[in-house]
Amino acid sequence: MTLERPNIAAMRGYAPGEQPQDAGTIKLNTNENPYPPSPDVAAALREFDSATLRRYPHPLADEFRQVAAKLHGLSIDNVIPTNGGDELLRLILTTFVAEGETVATTKPSYSLYPVLAAIQGAVLSEIDLDDDWSLPNDLIAQLNALGAKAFILVNPHAPTGRLVDANVVADIASRFEGLVVIDEAYIDFVSPELNHDCVPLLARFDNLLILRTLSKGYSLAGLRFGYGLASPSLAAPVLFKTRDSYNTDAISQRLAAAALGSQDYASNTWERVRESRTNLHAELEAMGLDTLPSQSNFLLSKMPEGVSAQAVYLQLKERGILVRYFDQDRLRDKLRISIGSESENQRLMAALREILKT
Amino acid sequence: MTLERPNIAAMRGYAPGEQPQDAGTIKLNTNENPYPPSPDVAAALREFDSATLRRYPHPLADEFRQVAAKLHGLSIDNVIPTNGGDELLRLILTTFVAEGETVATTKPSYSLYPVLAAIQGAVLSEIDLDDDWSLPNDLIAQLNALGAKAFILVNPHAPTGRLVDANVVADIASRFEGLVVIDEAYIDFVSPELNHDCVPLLARFDNLLILRTLSKGYSLAGLRFGYGLASPSLAAPVLFKTRDSYNTDAISQRLAAAALGSQDYASNTWERVRESRTNLHAELEAMGLDTLPSQSNFLLSKMPEGVSAQAVYLQLKERGILVRYFDQDRLRDKLRISIGSESENQRLMAALREILKT
Repeated sequence: MTLERPNIAAMRGYAPGEQPQDAGTIKLNTNENPYPPSPDVAAALREFDSATLRRYPHPLADEFRQVAAKLHGLSIDNVIPTNGGDELLRLILTTFVAEGETVATTKPSYSLYPVLAAIQGAVLSEIDLDDDWSLPNDLIAQLNALGAKAFILVNPHAPTGRLVDANVVADIASRFEGLVVIDEAYIDFVSPELNHDCVPLLARFDNLLILRTLSKGYSLAGLRFGYGLASPSLAAPVLFKTRDSYNTDAISQRLAAAALGSQDYASNTWERVRESRTNLHAELEAMGLDTLPSQSNFLLSKMPEGVSAQAVYLQLKERGILVRYFDQDRLRDKLRISIGSESENQRLMAALREILKT
Repeated sequence: MTLERPNIAAMRGYAPGEQPQDAGTIKLNTNENPYPPSPDVAAALREFDSATLRRYPHPLADEFRQVAAKLHGLSIDNVIPTNGGDELLRLILTTFVAEGETVATTKPSYSLYPVLAAIQGAVLSEIDLDDDWSLPNDLIAQLNALGAKAFILVNPHAPTGRLVDANVVADIASRFEGLVVIDEAYIDFVSPELNHDCVPLLARFDNLLILRTLSKGYSLAGLRFGYGLASPSLAAPVLFKTRDSYNTDAISQRLAAAALGSQDYASNTWERVRESRTNLHAELEAMGLDTLPSQSNFLLSKMPEGVSAQAVYLQLKERGILVRYFDQDRLRDKLRISIGSESENQRLMAALREILKT
């Protein structure tokens, strides 16, 4: 006898990227920041008094919410603190998408979305991207025809790094009848000269929710801290009903506030990643590997005709370099490579040259 | 227009106990341990290298699971690490109780259970405890007649502190057709001479899940770390399907392992709490306040005839002392008082004497 709900028994779990715990591996597989978190985070950790842990944390992480609200020019009522961005994604389904209702996303997209839909017993509709990975022209018509309750768009897109303009996001929020979730996990790596910013749209749209995470831009994947930005009416049920009452811990709250308060340091790491992205993109192209321009901290690179991307992934792994291979339509001939430090990128390139020469 | 699911729109959220962040308040309202966590936890925190936070944590917290498995004489396949015990309770409903199915508990019980049932759209059936707060004789018949998918028993019971014998738990697991969840949040405070232990039952029952938390016994409410113990077949869907892939962070994993590895220190705090419990119980009774014997780190104390428990709660609060008042059947004439340090308990008693004299 199994006690699982039928939808849980039938589903497969999310397969996270490999996380070897040794320091020797060159990890270019899960889009971590190659640079450590801010010295202010290190100081906050050193100064944290473990004796205070005997008490419950602030249930709503108000210190963090104040820092986040100030950073974005919003109020704390707009800010939902979560245990990583993944928790916010789950909470969105729990709060807004009932069993049997439809949640839409693009194909391909972040591979966690289908898993979360399966857990909730929701129907996942994946809308094909165009050949150039742009959104189809009739996206909004498709969403409304599906009767989708929510649409989740990762922007910049994973795994391509393509950025959808804020005007397009506004158009979706304006004409789609459901909830629009913009997963901005990689937003910090967008080139500043694009002046891309969806946060001002929150004042106009009550059905728009923006996800942020400290995992990538703030070098804190190990801390598990993310947050949502939304109108107070949209944020309230997540904040006060569906969120576990103490979903973030006292140390994480403190360190997350320190990280977000340390903008100069963080934006310097983003700039370095962007420079490395430009260099790595040029080198991959120079090797003859078709590589999409990216506004994120990874590149999606097509292996040469007749070369198995999976085999290259495995050969890189043998050399202690991890990249991400997706066994999915349109991706089987490609590898997703996180931007590492300059020396990591050089070691990747040397290994790739060696592997592809033979 | 509201985008919330109808069951979310209709429900009220969980009201956590008050969590003032100032150090001056005497907090006897949320069952925190009056003593700080182990020096090993402090050392683990000091030695934690913040630079490692740029990488994802171990998805399954294996270091912690190994320590927990060893402590309980189990294998890591029996251990589910969670972001506080509350997350495990939520995951139990997500994994095993579908929308419209019934989850049963006792009345009264931990006030989070009804909230979690409402979020999941499950039906909550509360089975009345007998007049002496013991389980009714026909409990199992009631559970089976309800067709309950799961039964959650907090043991020792909250808010009375009453302990249900392991033989009774075995009987429930043996004859009830659904999942049996024993919420052992307060188990560490049970008197050792009772030799109470439900963990060996896991080898006999595939439908038994035991919840533990580090919040109380290990003085780590601020860290958010709990775990489940269950047969591998019962644990697997929670571990590999419904749990957020990175539900616990790298610092918490390290500190939780240090805390659990520090048994001598922790059990010394439990012994001190038990001694204070005995003293406080005697003093409350000597004042004429009917107070249940408790195997937990709190006491449920009945206010004298004609005295409003809510008014006493408020007057204590004015004096900087927080206790818990529940606006619920059978509890409106009582206060739940967490066992504090000896000096905190003395200040509580002095304040109570003053308030009840007038």
